[in-house]
Amino acid sequence: MHPLGEHARAWTPKTARARFRSGVSGPTAGIAAGHTQANLISVPADWAYDMLLFCQRNPGPCPVLDVTDAGSWTTPLAEGADLRTDLPRYRVWEHGELVDEPTDVVDRWRDDLVSFLIGCSFTFEWALTEAGVPLRHIEQGRNVSMYVTARRCRPAGRLHGPMVVSMRPVPPEHLAAAIRESSLMPAVHGSPVHCGEPSGLGIRSLAHPDFGDAVDAEPDDIPVFWACGVTPQAAVMASRPPFAITHAPGQMFLTDARDDQYRVA
Amino acid sequence: MHPLGEHARAWTPKTARARFRSGVSGPTAGIAAGHTQANLISVPADWAYDMLLFCQRNPGPCPVLDVTDAGSWTTPLAEGADLRTDLPRYRVWEHGELVDEPTDVVDRWRDDLVSFLIGCSFTFEWALTEAGVPLRHIEQGRNVSMYVTARRCRPAGRLHGPMVVSMRPVPPEHLAAAIRESSLMPAVHGSPVHCGEPSGLGIRSLAHPDFGDAVDAEPDDIPVFWACGVTPQAAVMASRPPFAITHAPGQMFLTDARDDQYRVA
Repeated sequence: MHPLGEHARAWTPKTARARFRSGVSGPTAGIAAGHTQANLISVPADWAYDMLLFCQRNPGPCPVLDVTDAGSWTTPLAEGADLRTDLPRYRVWEHGELVDEPTDVVDRWRDDLVSFLIGCSFTFEWALTEAGVPLRHIEQGRNVSMYVTARRCRPAGRLHGPMVVSMRPVPPEHLAAAIRESSLMPAVHGSPVHCGEPSGLGIRSLAHPDFGDAVDAEPDDIPVFWACGVTPQAAVMASRPPFAITHAPGQMFLTDARDDQYRVA
Repeated sequence: MHPLGEHARAWTPKTARARFRSGVSGPTAGIAAGHTQANLISVPADWAYDMLLFCQRNPGPCPVLDVTDAGSWTTPLAEGADLRTDLPRYRVWEHGELVDEPTDVVDRWRDDLVSFLIGCSFTFEWALTEAGVPLRHIEQGRNVSMYVTARRCRPAGRLHGPMVVSMRPVPPEHLAAAIRESSLMPAVHGSPVHCGEPSGLGIRSLAHPDFGDAVDAEPDDIPVFWACGVTPQAAVMASRPPFAITHAPGQMFLTDARDDQYRVA
């Protein structure tokens, strides 16, 4: 069963947002089938250009789906949504330090916050499922495993930091489909950045993810790594802007957009 | 023969840039086979966030390949290149008015200029050619036809304006290949925005392009329209920033990047 309940897979995005608004929280992989999930990062307007440029220079981990005007908590990607309340859980950052993990940020909101909605690999998970690729974390009712890598992002202004990846164990016979299907969705991270030996990315132990849960692999599974939208959060930790709000890793914003609109063919 | 000379198709990007630096100018479609061409738009730093956001909000016409730091005329996309001299011809804009069309902008350069390199549909022309799609403008030694449309871009800050498109007449038996091949290159405009009747885009007459040359079509050819990187130039004309430098339409910046690196599958 999904940790958010037996019906969570069939929720509409609007239902999911309403539940989260009412205080429900939990990992969102596998809910609201076929609808696009997004990472959130909100920074003061003074940092917005650096963040937008950081995303442009690192389109693999940071594909931008929408950018709000300063102070606005609405987005055309989700009718009636309030970005301050409609995510399951938030993280509040001051000078790069995590200071709070609330279920809404109404009291933390500032008029100068510019919010970035960044593509999420959960978007291509449906395409992987349709292509027959098993998803271990969903089977096990866990959050996806995420790791900070030794790869540096291309800096932009004051922003710098490492690339974060999500990892899915893929049976060898499904590897081609996993690569092909995700490649066709470049706006939501696209093809994997690495397959196989985790040390190639400077990851020491798959059993100890930096974000999310450890996931059990079958003996022949190949670890497949995709660039992850938690990367801007790692840039906040490394670059220490005075203030930022993000989603909690794996607890995403549910948009009304359909996953297949990010598919190029 | 190509208007830039019989050997222009086989130039390296470095050779092309050196020729243009020495004062040669002309349309660049069909030169330096397999290398990525880019639109240029340089705006004062004060306008850079609006321009970057405009591009993010309009990724079809404005796919960003690189953004320089303020004042810099170099780019990692082309080793040793000087963005002030290495394009065939430039346009200089003051308050939205075209004031000059020089072959270099050394005297016009400012320390606060941020330069955007925007993807160009010439990048997928090689893929179209490989797939057997005839390109009328190249056969006829002309610049591609470009039109201002009635579609509005999504505004960003002070920037707004219409979408500009390039048009290629495609024989019906090649239409599927033209759409398929360009769809696989979303970073350089991707699939067409419209096929057939030009009035669907508010274009009155294909014989009178707003930029580039009119191109002769065969009787059965279908006009196929792709979003065009001249769109930021139209935004400059509409939004009237105090100063801007762009390439002259069809006379692009030659990068060292290979077209196939922008192909997703």
